[in-house]
Amino acid sequence: MVQQRLLDIAIEQFGQHGLDGVSTREIAAAADTAMSSITYHYGGKEGLYLAAADEVAKQMGGLDTIATFDRVIAGGDPAAARGAIAAIMRNFLERLQQPQSNAWALFIMREQLNPTEAFERIYAGPMGQTARVLVELICVATGGDDRAAARLAAISLFGQVLVMKAARATCRKMLERETLTQDVIDDYAARVVANIDAILDRMIAERQEQS
Amino acid sequence: MVQQRLLDIAIEQFGQHGLDGVSTREIAAAADTAMSSITYHYGGKEGLYLAAADEVAKQMGGLDTIATFDRVIAGGDPAAARGAIAAIMRNFLERLQQPQSNAWALFIMREQLNPTEAFERIYAGPMGQTARVLVELICVATGGDDRAAARLAAISLFGQVLVMKAARATCRKMLERETLTQDVIDDYAARVVANIDAILDRMIAERQEQS
Repeated sequence: MVQQRLLDIAIEQFGQHGLDGVSTREIAAAADTAMSSITYHYGGKEGLYLAAADEVAKQMGGLDTIATFDRVIAGGDPAAARGAIAAIMRNFLERLQQPQSNAWALFIMREQLNPTEAFERIYAGPMGQTARVLVELICVATGGDDRAAARLAAISLFGQVLVMKAARATCRKMLERETLTQDVIDDYAARVVANIDAILDRMIAERQEQS
Repeated sequence: MVQQRLLDIAIEQFGQHGLDGVSTREIAAAADTAMSSITYHYGGKEGLYLAAADEVAKQMGGLDTIATFDRVIAGGDPAAARGAIAAIMRNFLERLQQPQSNAWALFIMREQLNPTEAFERIYAGPMGQTARVLVELICVATGGDDRAAARLAAISLFGQVLVMKAARATCRKMLERETLTQDVIDDYAARVVANIDAILDRMIAERQEQS
């Protein structure tokens, strides 16, 4: 209980202020525990920061479904791969709308701009696994094996979902909405899924032109 | 000179630590000036924060080219509109690669997640202007006037560029690159431009199905 509270507060505080902008004294006080418990469980501030990164990776979740996608990749059916890509993107979009993602969003964005050892640990979790799966699914969906092309495409798909969190205030302004209600998210998800289809079709056409 | 130094340091410090995480004392010391000069020029911390937001809007730039895009919109030529959309996206991608964007990136992302009055001022600048132009250009390029559909599409295009900054470390990992060199950016820009083409074509097909 104390450890979970410490981690949640650490994610929020480190996210808001960075590793150097917050003291273990402040985190211990906010978690209503003694500073010695941070030393005992995590060895100190750096250890707590890395544990917070592991917790972020855990809360991002998704690892449990990787096996399902690996089966789709092994199956080699382009239509199934296309459906799996859409499912990953929809799921990621839904996940980013959940209130608990606010806690780790700033932590991750800070690491994205100035990555530390913590980013390696986050990427080693669901984030990197999903990236790998997405690239392979794009290869299956387009019937190609150009990993470099698939990676660029994967980033362009990833961005279409990420924007709803990383530029949330801009999205709200553009959509003239105070809050991003489920109907807006559904409309946007439909746009993204149609885009994925259009982009994959274009990639197939590009490959046929080259051969 | 002192004012520019103060603003640059304010953007960086407020970006790193937030409004509440940094004192005017620290900013004045880092800018090698007296605290009284912050009071004199900006009235205090909140005033300096808003001035920093205005400076971020200014550094994002692009306002000078809005008139050019407005002429393309007025012209009503779908091919010209398509070219203009690609030009905006390429330009934005290049801009986000410039080292100076590191200073304001965290400032803006923090505001995106927890917007304050400062976000209104940033959006009132080039950001909001570009968003408006992009939506109108999509209408011209697809020959439609469904603003709601164009707004969703504009967000999905915007995200494809934003990802290279907001998830830069993830992109580097996915592309297996230590740094995002110009050749990688060029390859990615080509992918995004092809995607824009494919998405606009799909939107035209969607419109024809509906009518």
